[in-house]
Amino acid sequence: MSKRIVIALGGNALGKSPEEQLALVERTASTIVDLVEEGYDVVIGHGNGPQVGMVNLAFEYAATHGGGTPAMPFPECGAMTQGYIGYHLQQSIGRELARRGIDKPCATVVTQVVVDADDPAFNNPTKPVGMFYDREQAQRIAQDKGYTFVEDAGRGYRRVVPSPVPVKIVELPVVKSLVSAGAVVITVGGGGIPVVEHSAGDYTGVAAVIDKDRASARLALDLGADMLVILTAVDKVAINYRQPSQRDLDRLTVDQAREYITQGHFAPGSMLPKVESCIDFVAQSRGGVALITSLDKAREALRGTTGTLITP
Amino acid sequence: MSKRIVIALGGNALGKSPEEQLALVERTASTIVDLVEEGYDVVIGHGNGPQVGMVNLAFEYAATHGGGTPAMPFPECGAMTQGYIGYHLQQSIGRELARRGIDKPCATVVTQVVVDADDPAFNNPTKPVGMFYDREQAQRIAQDKGYTFVEDAGRGYRRVVPSPVPVKIVELPVVKSLVSAGAVVITVGGGGIPVVEHSAGDYTGVAAVIDKDRASARLALDLGADMLVILTAVDKVAINYRQPSQRDLDRLTVDQAREYITQGHFAPGSMLPKVESCIDFVAQSRGGVALITSLDKAREALRGTTGTLITP
Repeated sequence: MSKRIVIALGGNALGKSPEEQLALVERTASTIVDLVEEGYDVVIGHGNGPQVGMVNLAFEYAATHGGGTPAMPFPECGAMTQGYIGYHLQQSIGRELARRGIDKPCATVVTQVVVDADDPAFNNPTKPVGMFYDREQAQRIAQDKGYTFVEDAGRGYRRVVPSPVPVKIVELPVVKSLVSAGAVVITVGGGGIPVVEHSAGDYTGVAAVIDKDRASARLALDLGADMLVILTAVDKVAINYRQPSQRDLDRLTVDQAREYITQGHFAPGSMLPKVESCIDFVAQSRGGVALITSLDKAREALRGTTGTLITP
Repeated sequence: MSKRIVIALGGNALGKSPEEQLALVERTASTIVDLVEEGYDVVIGHGNGPQVGMVNLAFEYAATHGGGTPAMPFPECGAMTQGYIGYHLQQSIGRELARRGIDKPCATVVTQVVVDADDPAFNNPTKPVGMFYDREQAQRIAQDKGYTFVEDAGRGYRRVVPSPVPVKIVELPVVKSLVSAGAVVITVGGGGIPVVEHSAGDYTGVAAVIDKDRASARLALDLGADMLVILTAVDKVAINYRQPSQRDLDRLTVDQAREYITQGHFAPGSMLPKVESCIDFVAQSRGGVALITSLDKAREALRGTTGTLITP
């Protein structure tokens, strides 16, 4: 049986405009198909930070500056980015598969991810989204709509949304069917459209952003994946990062990783959630391992010659 | 074996704003799940006219009025509406399935549909999209970007895009897998993201709108569906529509339908493409029939008590 891997792609690797993204995903597709060619069953999660910001901003701007179009709630903006990014990814991956004579479909599943309505993150929104407003505007909108705003040094006030923990992937059975049928599946885009569950099967969207690495770890656990692969800007995880004593790590056990976290080696909002997601996956899975490396080095890293491997 | 039906939902039935759409799809979901309960395997195609117009307009407006976000090409706008509409539909249908104790997943597949680069429609763009411009603006944009504009009586100039015939559904194998696995599948949203095929598996998006009824007919043929169901604003197809001699039709053979078309009974852009799509499906399928009725009457129509049935 071929090994099943879940790959988490960074939102920044996808591009800030449609033209840039269409160009960037070609490189991404080439790496993904490299891994398919190595014999892996590949499932892809991806970020959407810049893209969901762009969609939210365009609608907010048009709605508040006379464009005549409605404002777009945050979960709907996330759903739009799943269509948008998924389309680019599946088109590029499909082209690369065909070019190499690999007969496999590639598809995007619009995916909702359940978060807990009582998640403490809802009391502490941290992810900035959308436009900058002046103090008065921000206060008025906060009163009108109940949004939370924070000041961004010098640039004005910006809405922040919570980043709760992913609990359950609603479309998991569908993803499983497609993986079993041999498809390259794109799912949990932007960490998934965040929803809360009121009763069994009854979900509604909430304004939040789920971390894509955490959603990919959840996905890897639920799919019983052999490996979680987080692709980022660096080839390896490092301790004492950007200090003279920086040391790149080839391997890292869960216990070592936890110790390094306690020692403050990994930056919050950057390497920390990646390492934590790897720990979550490796500690809870049956024999699974995790890998952090760059897009360019993914093939080599899966062969064991670079990257940081996180093991039990 | 249960009967497989492809349902084409009208874009106007989905709502012009996110709030309106979320309310409207509840009714749509109830009808869809009625049909699931009747024992049908249901695959859903849907329109996106108002929604893709909204997305295109919001991005165009923000890009040209200082919003700082990029303009969004037309195929990407279509991909966004697939995510947006699909999310609302799958959430509502999923809720209704759960409420009735039916254990079936519902999922949206981001779907590309191939059109012929030589389709005569490309020489005669007819579908208006996006903003109104004054004469000078329209001329400048036409020169800059090669867009075609038409004057809309009194309201200014508006871009028009072609409406080519759907030739092939790229993600068909994926849709087939999910239908076989028992899922309610949402696909060919907005008629599909229109792409042209350069060589096997190499597709790129084009600015066009595929008619959702034609795309649903293509889907029904490719899936070997037993029935194509087109849901629209009226319970039955009529001849001499809105005249004293109006006659609602219970049944219609392909030959009769062709004759009525020749006699000009069906309005272009309205009932005509629906009847033509039904003819295409019934004439080419092995024993399949087509049904045109309203959303509210769908269950009864499938039981044979209302609607217009199109037979060989």
